[in-house]
Amino acid sequence: MIRVNGLTTDRVNARDRGLAYGDGVFRTLRTEASQPVWWADHYAKLKADCSALMLDCPDQAELRAEVCQVAEAGQGVVKIVLTRGAGARGYALPIEPATTCIVLASALPHHAQNFDDVHARWCELKLGRQPRLAGVKHLNRLENVLARAEWNDPTIFEGLLCDDSGAVISGVMSNVLWGKGGALFTPDLSQCGVAGVARMRLLRAAARLGIGIHTGRFLPAELLAADEVMICNSVMGVRRLARLDDTIWSPAGWTLTLNNALYEDLD
Amino acid sequence: MIRVNGLTTDRVNARDRGLAYGDGVFRTLRTEASQPVWWADHYAKLKADCSALMLDCPDQAELRAEVCQVAEAGQGVVKIVLTRGAGARGYALPIEPATTCIVLASALPHHAQNFDDVHARWCELKLGRQPRLAGVKHLNRLENVLARAEWNDPTIFEGLLCDDSGAVISGVMSNVLWGKGGALFTPDLSQCGVAGVARMRLLRAAARLGIGIHTGRFLPAELLAADEVMICNSVMGVRRLARLDDTIWSPAGWTLTLNNALYEDLD
Repeated sequence: MIRVNGLTTDRVNARDRGLAYGDGVFRTLRTEASQPVWWADHYAKLKADCSALMLDCPDQAELRAEVCQVAEAGQGVVKIVLTRGAGARGYALPIEPATTCIVLASALPHHAQNFDDVHARWCELKLGRQPRLAGVKHLNRLENVLARAEWNDPTIFEGLLCDDSGAVISGVMSNVLWGKGGALFTPDLSQCGVAGVARMRLLRAAARLGIGIHTGRFLPAELLAADEVMICNSVMGVRRLARLDDTIWSPAGWTLTLNNALYEDLD
Repeated sequence: MIRVNGLTTDRVNARDRGLAYGDGVFRTLRTEASQPVWWADHYAKLKADCSALMLDCPDQAELRAEVCQVAEAGQGVVKIVLTRGAGARGYALPIEPATTCIVLASALPHHAQNFDDVHARWCELKLGRQPRLAGVKHLNRLENVLARAEWNDPTIFEGLLCDDSGAVISGVMSNVLWGKGGALFTPDLSQCGVAGVARMRLLRAAARLGIGIHTGRFLPAELLAADEVMICNSVMGVRRLARLDDTIWSPAGWTLTLNNALYEDLD
C-alpha cells in the first residue's frame, strides 16, 4: 500500500522538487503488527534531517497514523519520503512550501528475516565530502546507486565505501562498526555518509553496557585489523561480516551482544 | 503542458527512482516557435549524461517530437527529465530498467527576455567534489538548493560557487567565464559542477574566433582581476556581471561578442 499526502494513491506531481532536485529526506523502518519499530528515534531523526534542509516535518502523531495505515499486518518495511513539494521552475525555495509526504509499505526482505553472517567488498567509488549534507538521509543518493552498480554477484551482500581522503565511511545501505580489544569503533560522519538510527541505537546501547566507543577517522587497514566487523541498518539490525574481499573473520561475540542490546526495546 | 512517457499527464509513479534517489538527468532548453533551440547539442549532452549514469536515452527524433508537442507557440522553455523509472526497493539497478521521460513546458522567464547586466554574490556553501558525477546535469541538486537559499535579495541574480579546495566552479544555475588580456578563462569541471551546453557552445565559438581559451583551476582573486566576468546558460545566453559583492566592472566588450557568436546558429 502507498499513500501520498494522506490519500491512497501511487501518483505524485511530476513537478515535485523531490524528483527535480532530490530536495527531500527519507526513512526506511521496520514494522511489526502494523506498528513502526523504534518510532521515537525514527521520528527524531526525520525531524533533524528536515531541519538540515529547512523543510517542514509533518506532525508526529499524524505521520505515525499514516505509517500504521499502510503497514503490513505481520512484519514489514515502511518507507517515508518527505519532499519540498511541487514548485515553480528554479532552485529558489518556494514562498509557500507544502511538504509532500509519501508513505509506502513493502514486505520484509528475505535477508532481514534472519541474522546470518554476510560477505562484503570494497567499492571503487569514493564518496565526496559535503559537511552541509553529511549525516542526513536526503534524496541525493546517486553515489549509492553508482557504488551498488559495481557488483552483481548475489553472494556479496554489501559494499563498503571510503571517502576521497581514504577514510572508511559506511556501507552502501548500512553503517559500519567494529570491535577491537574490548572497544567499539565507527567512522565519524561529519563529512559524508548517513548517520542511521540503527547506528545511533547501537552506540547508545554500547554506552549503556559500559563499552568504550571510538568515533573518528579510520583507514581500511584499521577496520581489517578488527576482531569483528559489523554492518547495521534499521531493517536488518546488526550483521557480522564473515568476509570482506580476501579477509575472513571468525565470530568474536560482538554481533550477538549488540543485536541483543539493539532489540531490548522496540520503541 | 507536461507529458510523461508520451502521455499528457502531470503525474509520475511515487516509486520512481528519480524521486527516491535523484537517479536521473535533466536538460532545460529554450524553444522558439515550438522548436528546440540548439537541439543537436542538447541531445548530445543528454545522451552523454545518460551514459555516465548507465541510463537508457530515448531516441533523438522521438524525444524532439515530444519537445515540439509541449513547447509554447512563441518563445518558451522546455525541461526534459529522464529517470531510471520505477523500481523495487534498494539501490541496485533494476534488471529491466524502463526510463521515465518527463517533458515540461513553461513560459520564457522575464530575466531571459533581455540581455541586461546582472549582479551576483559569492555563496558560503562549498561544492563537494565527486569526479564520477562532475559535469553531469543529474538530479542530485541539493547543493544548488542550499546555495540558492542563501539570499532573498531580488537584485541579486546569481550566486557564485567555489569547491571545498577554494577553486571557482560556477554559478548556482549557470556556468562562469571571464575575459582577461584578450583570452577567455573558465573553470575546469572535472571534480564538480555542470558542464552546460551554453558554456560548451561559447568555448566552441571562442575557438572559431581565434580567442585563446584557458580551462583550469582558478581562485576567486583571478576572477576578480578579470576585464569582464560572464555567466551563461541555455535559457538566458551570456550575461555580464556588473557587480559581484563589492566589486564593480565596466563593460569590456566580451559579452556582446560572445552573445553574437553564441546565437550565430540556432541548431
